[in-house]
Amino acid sequence: MDYSKFFSADVPSFLRSPVREIFRKVDLNAICSFAGGYPAACTFPMADIPALTGRVLDKYGTRALQYGATQGVPELREQIARRYGVPVSQVQITTSSQQGIDICSRILLDPGDIVLADNPVYLGALQSFRAYRADVREIPAGCDAPPSAPKFIYVIPDFNNPSGETMTLARRQEIAQLARELDCLIVEDSPYRELRYSGEPVTPIRELAPERTLQLGSFSKIFAPGFRLGWIIGPEPLLEQIFVCKQCLDLCPPVLDQYLATEFMASGLLDANLAKTIVEYRRRRDLMLSLLEKYMPAGVSWTHPEGGLFLWLTLPPAVDTVALYDKALAAGVAYVAGSFFYTDGSHRNTMRLNFSFIDEAKMEPGIRLLAGLVAEAAAPSARIY
Amino acid sequence: MDYSKFFSADVPSFLRSPVREIFRKVDLNAICSFAGGYPAACTFPMADIPALTGRVLDKYGTRALQYGATQGVPELREQIARRYGVPVSQVQITTSSQQGIDICSRILLDPGDIVLADNPVYLGALQSFRAYRADVREIPAGCDAPPSAPKFIYVIPDFNNPSGETMTLARRQEIAQLARELDCLIVEDSPYRELRYSGEPVTPIRELAPERTLQLGSFSKIFAPGFRLGWIIGPEPLLEQIFVCKQCLDLCPPVLDQYLATEFMASGLLDANLAKTIVEYRRRRDLMLSLLEKYMPAGVSWTHPEGGLFLWLTLPPAVDTVALYDKALAAGVAYVAGSFFYTDGSHRNTMRLNFSFIDEAKMEPGIRLLAGLVAEAAAPSARIY
Repeated sequence: MDYSKFFSADVPSFLRSPVREIFRKVDLNAICSFAGGYPAACTFPMADIPALTGRVLDKYGTRALQYGATQGVPELREQIARRYGVPVSQVQITTSSQQGIDICSRILLDPGDIVLADNPVYLGALQSFRAYRADVREIPAGCDAPPSAPKFIYVIPDFNNPSGETMTLARRQEIAQLARELDCLIVEDSPYRELRYSGEPVTPIRELAPERTLQLGSFSKIFAPGFRLGWIIGPEPLLEQIFVCKQCLDLCPPVLDQYLATEFMASGLLDANLAKTIVEYRRRRDLMLSLLEKYMPAGVSWTHPEGGLFLWLTLPPAVDTVALYDKALAAGVAYVAGSFFYTDGSHRNTMRLNFSFIDEAKMEPGIRLLAGLVAEAAAPSARIY
Repeated sequence: MDYSKFFSADVPSFLRSPVREIFRKVDLNAICSFAGGYPAACTFPMADIPALTGRVLDKYGTRALQYGATQGVPELREQIARRYGVPVSQVQITTSSQQGIDICSRILLDPGDIVLADNPVYLGALQSFRAYRADVREIPAGCDAPPSAPKFIYVIPDFNNPSGETMTLARRQEIAQLARELDCLIVEDSPYRELRYSGEPVTPIRELAPERTLQLGSFSKIFAPGFRLGWIIGPEPLLEQIFVCKQCLDLCPPVLDQYLATEFMASGLLDANLAKTIVEYRRRRDLMLSLLEKYMPAGVSWTHPEGGLFLWLTLPPAVDTVALYDKALAAGVAYVAGSFFYTDGSHRNTMRLNFSFIDEAKMEPGIRLLAGLVAEAAAPSARIY
């Protein structure tokens, strides 16, 4: 039976995530994987979960297992509002920050609408925008306006996925200015903002253009991704439409999980755990930077992220990371080819490396292996003759 | 600032749930509410949650808090597959069965596409179909084909929300036959199927037309709604597309919650709790039926559900349940006006009553109050003169 005739006109624009495809085929624990964007399991507050669960059941009773408000439970919205200095009415809890991206796309995008984004851009966002048949284009440099008005500008200003880079205050001001000139919205995706290992925090774009920014947050990196919880902070008229949309999507976010997050925040455990997580990830980032320095051949450069989970390699032009991928996997090392993050599939000599998930003991063999493959691909003749 | 110019062309078709709007304004615990579709809190396995949580953390370790597979964790898919006698490859876990409805709509519907549905129809489904600008029409009686081919037929064959009715086997066979003739799919929404209080189970439509049925299930009524977990059973080519779509929606369902559901099923607790839930709800259904018999004036009729959470009242034509609503709320009783479940807003002399959520002690005063309001609305002159 041919099912393709039943599918909506959006379906041919659905992209499979090459990252998730890797996860389907390969046991990441069996190889040296720099591929996913997984947090380190050692940062999960495993030991706190039983006590948190007990406290939630005592304090909230059967409310913890019942349907909840579509906006999220008031107690968690209150915690988010307090932490980020916004009114509760400007906070919507989402079932993951990926849902935050999807719900913004759902209420804003029609086929052909323009989204301006960094290039390379976060794959989950690109998937979502493309699934609504949006036209994803690169944000112009400086304050130059593009020929047609976009619906919104999408950015990850802090420790960008995939590049690892942080936007300067001047660039954030340009983005806010550009949005005002174009009269469009800004979707500021901030899943990593709290994971800063060096340097000083930069003002969020939301504070530079509060009237037109939807800021997305995530519990995946500051609590645990298994809870699928995130939030949106934004102007009330936009949140009101998101509220109506969310009724159709899943009625409300997971309720027990929301109360666990509430108590995790209210008790101070989040801040204590975050401090430990930052120490852990700073060490891993520094280790990876030193290993790249030690093993990578000449002609390879990389970003030096001040936070987040990723860094970005630019290899000699002769290296094709898409072509190299199967060989690398067979050799026992995984990465994500950089071209997957480019709207046009270009930049095949780049790759994204994750430094949060891999066991530290595997980092050196992994980078050494990868460096060998890169060196070979950069100058294959050296080995043949 | 006017935000309406930013919204997609779908947004004007978004419907607010009148049920969820009630929840925003009124504390349902303070009145006699027959309005929501909430399960009784006494059916939640509160006492089991700490031990289940401990077992999950012991057994699955940090996997319970990490990102999971987009299709759902294999252990839960296995449990569902075993319970319903289908291969694991035909099971997708969803973040609520509302997401099941939304994801089917997302991959199948373009603006103007026809969906055939019962009339009255579940409001959450109507919201979702309308949000994709589908044309929702009533399923023709018998096997008569409608003038244009629909994308799918949507039904709740067991203890329908809102009507409380169960579809006969003959009618299910007609639906399967109709779908084959029209070459369309069937979305069989089965959130209440396991809640049968009397009569014999009827074959699911999925078994009558497995090649073209997507069957939606829910943990909300057999575990607890706060977990936001459901599932879809269907042909693999359709699930493959749902898998790709779900990556954009939220990457994966909540992981700790999925493992809690896995252990709840595997340990036999689900079946034990379900047996108690059925006894509880049967008593409430019987009580409500006897109270309606006792208090409702002549000219009022109602369905006699064999399961589920709802029954449906048809009042004398003079009674307008939309107009009566504010008066009822002020008097301390809530229901959902039946016309909200009709695609054309007709049948204003009907209402849906929920018998699962309300305290049993409030049922008699609630029905007596409601009966008085109905009697007055049916013959207002009797009180004026």
